[in-house]
Amino acid sequence: MIDPFAPPFSARHIGPSESEQQRMLEAVGFESVADLVAVAVPEAIRAKDRLKLPAAIGETETIAELRAIAGRNRVLTSMIGLGYHDTVTPAVIRRSLLENPGWYTAYTPYQPEISQGRLEALLNFQTVVSDLTGLPVAGASLLDEGTAAAEAMTLARRAGKSKSDVFVVDADALPQTKAVLATRAEPLGITLVEHDLDGALPECFGVLVQYPGASGRLRDFRAVAAAAHEAGALVVAAADLLALTLVAAPGELGADIAIGSSQRFGVPFGFGGPHAAYMSVREGLQRQLPGRLVGVSVDADGDPAYRLALQTREQHIRREKATSNICTAQVLLAVIASMYAVYHGPEGLRGIAARVHRHAVALAAGLREAGLEVVHAEFFDTVLVRVPGRAAAVLAAAAERGVNLWQVDDDHVSISCDEKTGAAEVAKVWAAFGLDRSEVDLDADALPAALARESDYLTHPVFHSHRSETAMLRYLRRLQDKDIALDRSMIPLGSCTMKLNATTEMEPITWPEFAAIHPYAPADQAEGYLELIGTLEGWLAEVTGYDAVSVQPNAGSQGEFAGLLAIRAYHQARGDDGREVCLIPSSAHGTNAASAVMAGMRVVVVACDAEGNVDLADLDAKIDKHRDRLAAIMVTYPSTHGVYEETITEVCAKVHEAGGQVYVDGANLNALVGLAKPGEFGADVSHLNLHKTFCIPHGGGGPGVGPVAVRGHLAPYLPGHALHDGTPVGAVSAAPYGSAGILPISWAYIRMMGSEGLTAATEQAILSANYLAKRLAPHFPVLYTGRGGLVAHECIVDLRQITKETGVTVDDVAKRLIDYGFHAPTMSFPVAGTLMIEPTESEDLGELDRFVDAMIAIRGEIAKVASGAYDRTDNPLRNAPHTAESVSADEWSHPYTRTEAAYPLPSLREGKYWVPVRRIDQAYGDRNLVCSCPPLEAYED
Amino acid sequence: MIDPFAPPFSARHIGPSESEQQRMLEAVGFESVADLVAVAVPEAIRAKDRLKLPAAIGETETIAELRAIAGRNRVLTSMIGLGYHDTVTPAVIRRSLLENPGWYTAYTPYQPEISQGRLEALLNFQTVVSDLTGLPVAGASLLDEGTAAAEAMTLARRAGKSKSDVFVVDADALPQTKAVLATRAEPLGITLVEHDLDGALPECFGVLVQYPGASGRLRDFRAVAAAAHEAGALVVAAADLLALTLVAAPGELGADIAIGSSQRFGVPFGFGGPHAAYMSVREGLQRQLPGRLVGVSVDADGDPAYRLALQTREQHIRREKATSNICTAQVLLAVIASMYAVYHGPEGLRGIAARVHRHAVALAAGLREAGLEVVHAEFFDTVLVRVPGRAAAVLAAAAERGVNLWQVDDDHVSISCDEKTGAAEVAKVWAAFGLDRSEVDLDADALPAALARESDYLTHPVFHSHRSETAMLRYLRRLQDKDIALDRSMIPLGSCTMKLNATTEMEPITWPEFAAIHPYAPADQAEGYLELIGTLEGWLAEVTGYDAVSVQPNAGSQGEFAGLLAIRAYHQARGDDGREVCLIPSSAHGTNAASAVMAGMRVVVVACDAEGNVDLADLDAKIDKHRDRLAAIMVTYPSTHGVYEETITEVCAKVHEAGGQVYVDGANLNALVGLAKPGEFGADVSHLNLHKTFCIPHGGGGPGVGPVAVRGHLAPYLPGHALHDGTPVGAVSAAPYGSAGILPISWAYIRMMGSEGLTAATEQAILSANYLAKRLAPHFPVLYTGRGGLVAHECIVDLRQITKETGVTVDDVAKRLIDYGFHAPTMSFPVAGTLMIEPTESEDLGELDRFVDAMIAIRGEIAKVASGAYDRTDNPLRNAPHTAESVSADEWSHPYTRTEAAYPLPSLREGKYWVPVRRIDQAYGDRNLVCSCPPLEAYED
Repeated sequence: MIDPFAPPFSARHIGPSESEQQRMLEAVGFESVADLVAVAVPEAIRAKDRLKLPAAIGETETIAELRAIAGRNRVLTSMIGLGYHDTVTPAVIRRSLLENPGWYTAYTPYQPEISQGRLEALLNFQTVVSDLTGLPVAGASLLDEGTAAAEAMTLARRAGKSKSDVFVVDADALPQTKAVLATRAEPLGITLVEHDLDGALPECFGVLVQYPGASGRLRDFRAVAAAAHEAGALVVAAADLLALTLVAAPGELGADIAIGSSQRFGVPFGFGGPHAAYMSVREGLQRQLPGRLVGVSVDADGDPAYRLALQTREQHIRREKATSNICTAQVLLAVIASMYAVYHGPEGLRGIAARVHRHAVALAAGLREAGLEVVHAEFFDTVLVRVPGRAAAVLAAAAERGVNLWQVDDDHVSISCDEKTGAAEVAKVWAAFGLDRSEVDLDADALPAALARESDYLTHPVFHSHRSETAMLRYLRRLQDKDIALDRSMIPLGSCTMKLNATTEMEPITWPEFAAIHPYAPADQAEGYLELIGTLEGWLAEVTGYDAVSVQPNAGSQGEFAGLLAIRAYHQARGDDGREVCLIPSSAHGTNAASAVMAGMRVVVVACDAEGNVDLADLDAKIDKHRDRLAAIMVTYPSTHGVYEETITEVCAKVHEAGGQVYVDGANLNALVGLAKPGEFGADVSHLNLHKTFCIPHGGGGPGVGPVAVRGHLAPYLPGHALHDGTPVGAVSAAPYGSAGILPISWAYIRMMGSEGLTAATEQAILSANYLAKRLAPHFPVLYTGRGGLVAHECIVDLRQITKETGVTVDDVAKRLIDYGFHAPTMSFPVAGTLMIEPTESEDLGELDRFVDAMIAIRGEIAKVASGAYDRTDNPLRNAPHTAESVSADEWSHPYTRTEAAYPLPSLREGKYWVPVRRIDQAYGDRNLVCSCPPLEAYED
Repeated sequence: MIDPFAPPFSARHIGPSESEQQRMLEAVGFESVADLVAVAVPEAIRAKDRLKLPAAIGETETIAELRAIAGRNRVLTSMIGLGYHDTVTPAVIRRSLLENPGWYTAYTPYQPEISQGRLEALLNFQTVVSDLTGLPVAGASLLDEGTAAAEAMTLARRAGKSKSDVFVVDADALPQTKAVLATRAEPLGITLVEHDLDGALPECFGVLVQYPGASGRLRDFRAVAAAAHEAGALVVAAADLLALTLVAAPGELGADIAIGSSQRFGVPFGFGGPHAAYMSVREGLQRQLPGRLVGVSVDADGDPAYRLALQTREQHIRREKATSNICTAQVLLAVIASMYAVYHGPEGLRGIAARVHRHAVALAAGLREAGLEVVHAEFFDTVLVRVPGRAAAVLAAAAERGVNLWQVDDDHVSISCDEKTGAAEVAKVWAAFGLDRSEVDLDADALPAALARESDYLTHPVFHSHRSETAMLRYLRRLQDKDIALDRSMIPLGSCTMKLNATTEMEPITWPEFAAIHPYAPADQAEGYLELIGTLEGWLAEVTGYDAVSVQPNAGSQGEFAGLLAIRAYHQARGDDGREVCLIPSSAHGTNAASAVMAGMRVVVVACDAEGNVDLADLDAKIDKHRDRLAAIMVTYPSTHGVYEETITEVCAKVHEAGGQVYVDGANLNALVGLAKPGEFGADVSHLNLHKTFCIPHGGGGPGVGPVAVRGHLAPYLPGHALHDGTPVGAVSAAPYGSAGILPISWAYIRMMGSEGLTAATEQAILSANYLAKRLAPHFPVLYTGRGGLVAHECIVDLRQITKETGVTVDDVAKRLIDYGFHAPTMSFPVAGTLMIEPTESEDLGELDRFVDAMIAIRGEIAKVASGAYDRTDNPLRNAPHTAESVSADEWSHPYTRTEAAYPLPSLREGKYWVPVRRIDQAYGDRNLVCSCPPLEAYED
């Protein structure tokens, strides 16, 4: 299989060498990987054939193919607007953040002690949003502006006093926002009413105002807000952050909630994403915020430290009682946006906004002088022009000059200015309208006085201290150095599949031909993207055994939602309206339940047996009870317990027999690729996580892509596009192809691995998990195993007995692992008191052994607690993690030594990771909620 | 000056903001920068006009212009060979090393404690070279293969027993090697004799064998070596590292010295450079090695640690007794080459070499079968084909198919296979010869059995442990984290100008259109490069006030040599043959003297007065004494003492009057740009350091570019090209335009700064140096000042009195600065017992103050030593630097506290840099020389 002259890419992707693999097989007790797989994976689900994928090619060839594909996109100047604006990513931020594995390979900051860098960056983001929107609490980002609007809608519904089911949407809202709202509203029984907001407001529980509007109109919505509040409704402002540097903040105009995109703060188009949406709320709504919220707390030494706040809101805890299924944020993109603000500072942002505005004013003035009708007198960056019957011709003329405008209808064209707009672009637009003129006068400011921004923003020193490139470079480095990402060590997070994000996969995403395409660019300018997306959808269908795939969902949670909508629409289309029960095993990830509720379903829990498998008797009972109302079952395969359940085909058959559909959550697809296909072994629909199995990096907690894959009968019910009316199911994401900008990553991975490489990766992932299970078992009981005592691609070690006997908790072990240089495994999921470990195929034997050595050493420490050799409360486990400051303090009062604290293994003396804070007090932070940059005094001793 | 809407690039490049600048001016006691400059810079040398440069443009526009220029280069498949071979830079190495500021902004590893990462990487490089060449001691790289050959020639002359002045060069040596050897030989009185090495060897002190030859011929040179040794001559093998993975090592065939290029180990063409050359020598010659040599020593705790070995060989110590003027290595490129070997390992390299060889064999077989004459039966990668009268036509036919071949003469074409050669390329070559054939059979290996490689190489674990991309990524991160580079903190190295290397300047150099052009590509494929080089030479001439510039010298030392050659050739051309005396002030950098000797001159030292200025009386005396023999004076301006000497115009006039030429060393040009021009205030020639004033990063100790700039009368004597015969002065570098691949950096800097930006940078550099001098003066005496008590762009603080009184040395202060997170200033140059501090314009006020705070705190520590509060030998200064391990040790026996050791300032608690080793014992390492990777046991406790 190995080329005699050069190893294939799979040999770089897969960590263990052949000889290491052999040693691991010996440890696990098998002769070959084939033997292992034959026992581990149930015969009933095994795929018969190799994957029908093109033969793997090398990294150089893959880059060449991607260059050819990218070359079929054409980069024009975009003045389309509609929520996507061209922007300059500062080069230092591109190179040292967006293109830096130290940032993009990090995981979600659940372990806050090793995430202080990105948590600080996210706190900056929250401060930017909070300051600019004039609302005190901002979250750490949402998936896109459309879904943020939908989250705001449901927040308004549950938080407001009105009993109405009506949500009023600004007629001048972005088209994609309207589309996503519609998709989200329908299953929840919300009636959307589009309204121009000029007349009286209908009765409603909430109203969304676009500020400025999609048409460019800048409206003072104080009166709308007053009327809404009068009626007990909440006001959502969908606002442009750049405009807010010059105009009054939504919070000042009466908005309860602000949402929007931070894309134009330095994040490339990427044909639609990923971009970080934002949400901020007024005092009193913070506990209703969907998604992540970073807050300030203190560590064990009383020093300020950051961590995720109010985590009890989350869907993995609240399950079907969750109010949102959002699991991730767009961390990397939010960090870029925040660094853009840090680098420019308030004056810089104001300057950029002024420049944008004045170009728009000059553009409009020129058109007016030429006798054209400019529809709105007051605007920020977008000029709406009436050209009866001529809109298409103007667009064509502009395109000829290398500029994309937006055709609103036959008679209207809109032109949106942005950071890259200069005199040359304005002149080209004028020319497209038939105007021969080139002098652009930037003296005029045409913002309405009533909306002038008077409040300060970004007054915190962080927005004033990193203005030179050197200072920014060092700030990025300093933050990065605080965190553990994949560029330092293994991140053995069960269910999260933290595998290699190869450089060759990552490089293309910042090429201009992929990065600089507006999602609404004409199709003939995006041929490369459309080809790449089509190919990737086809490959994913082949890998999963389904018939059709949509890459639109920009997170796994959205893929789930889309999959359930497809099931719902399928039943409805057949007149089977009563099917609204969704069976979910008790072991399922909480998001499943939250998604089901969002899709208008009712969750019925199916019990699991002692081995963690679906309890077939209970399943039968539940099916019997809900037979006519049964819409679907959602199961994860391999199960969240990390085993291949033998009964999966039986489960599928039972549900089908009752008229239900089978949803297989693809979270654990890394254990199946090349070995088994959900679409073949009984499932009707799955979502995948391209940021798990298909190498898109987690980027510190997002971006993700969660394509939905379906069998043929569900294909008509895949998500529609924001700009396409009349599809049975609407849009689930703002952009037609979701986070298209990062799809080249998964494309490249599949292209370089081919059928053999993908299958070998799966096999190695299984072998590595079993190797860990085997080596750890003498020290920690492994909770669930399947046939032959084997696990799938992850294993759960059970600490409950240890905790009972010694008081040492899962938390203690997780934090102690930090002292050993490791990110903890998944804690207490799916079973409280356990650790779920997933090594992935990318870790080599040396790193696996290093992890095992750490776990065994920790077990030895636990034994000392048990024996009394260590104090029960003052021991290295309970006090973990140990900072350099703590182990070098002048006073050392602990009954264990400094060496035991800092260097429990000699190997740690080389390149030790020093955690920047000690253990963080979660409760303190929730009691004393601070979610924007604290004043510097907070850091004083 | 600041755009109302967006700051210019200069505001990103220059660290202090306007308000910070104002505060600094107040501290220094001036109202404005203009006032400061009016006092600091002598009126006599001030330039009258602003620089005539295009108006500055922004980063986005600069990238657009560079893309357009790059677009005028055409990337064809290169099969030219001749010492430059296409190669695949592994993506992980490109992104995480070549494109990573953590690596490229590092300085030369003179401070070994903060350079352990790159020192380990260089040790790997030395191990690769030593193993592959079969010679025990290898250096840390040289500038290029041509200069390495020249260094080997002079090494052979001084180390050999022969009294002959003849050096024999293989007729089959690379043309650029022959050219550089010729340039170097002549001034030293060495006679070069070209010889086919088949017949009897002439009497000589050394012989250079190209292995394999430029024509591809693979020769067993054992007999040549035996004959040479018999005659007391040394044997130099110029060998291809990739070939050495398959064929016998030069050391095994009798070579005393091996040299060559490591370019094809993953380093892009870059139109000729920068690439790392190598040199290795047999036992007994190690103390003769030119350039840097990394060795293993021990630190204060007895742990192994790396540092530069045998530094007493160096030109800055030995001055005119130096045997080479080499100051830098090509560290970044050597590190890339070493990581390429680490990533591929011995089997991987062997596989690549086999693939290359077999493609060449298949290519030759096809041509032979078609009846063509393949000249050499035994070759590695290059096939020489005889096509009487048809060579040009074959080349044209190949170019039509997108392939560049090499035309040896009218009747011969050579074709060189490389890592990128595949069946498609072979088929295209066949087609160019008129052969319609596509099947490429790789079964045949045609290496001569007598030359089969039998010895092992790369057996050290480092070449077997980082084979997955994940493992390589982490290895790079781990090494990077050990070092201080500009991405962490200020590097205030006097005379080294460690300013910002902006991302926008750096990004273009890895674009394929710049990276993938062979230096001998036809001119019509390199139009972009030629345009960029022409423009840059013009701008540099404008900035310096000279009439002509050559960018060929690929280091400052080579620029010096080229400048002196121009002076020499000028005198000779006028029949003024006796002029061979070069006056050099005692304060000069040692390289000046070494270069003068290399250029065939005799050094006469001119005294300096107590202020460090040239002693005019002594100058007069020396001129009088050597009037008829006076060739030149070499002065640095501002002086190496960091002051603007008032007498510079007088010095120039005196020398000119005596018929000498004035060489102004451009090392300190950062204090002149926009304010004064050497070419206008009296100098005839200068070299510049683009890695100082013009933003090329130091890359851990090279790459540098050292253009030479001359007034019109010297223009005819600028370096010729390797491929151009008949120029009055020959080539000083292997490639026609030296390290062309990094010239876009300086181009972009000048383009973005314009006249105002460049001048403002100079002014800020002067202000920052004076600010530091002012703030430090109450604590440390500032040694030299000029008019108004001002310094130029750097200042020297004098520790001699402190050392006398307290025993605290410059070394102690430098090492203690590491505990404060800083790279030390330049130590004991130009005056022993002092520190020379150069802040550059890129450091903001916060960082300058942080440095001052550290220095003041250290002064306080010194005071405690003086007062007896600290022990004279066991104190934080003498024991610096302190590792995390040392301050967290269970035992603490020092009379000062751990906190005093680790956190002498509270600000260090945030993001402290932890040095990986304690103070390194230099002498131990030189006594126990180990210059390749030590066995792992060395690291055991």
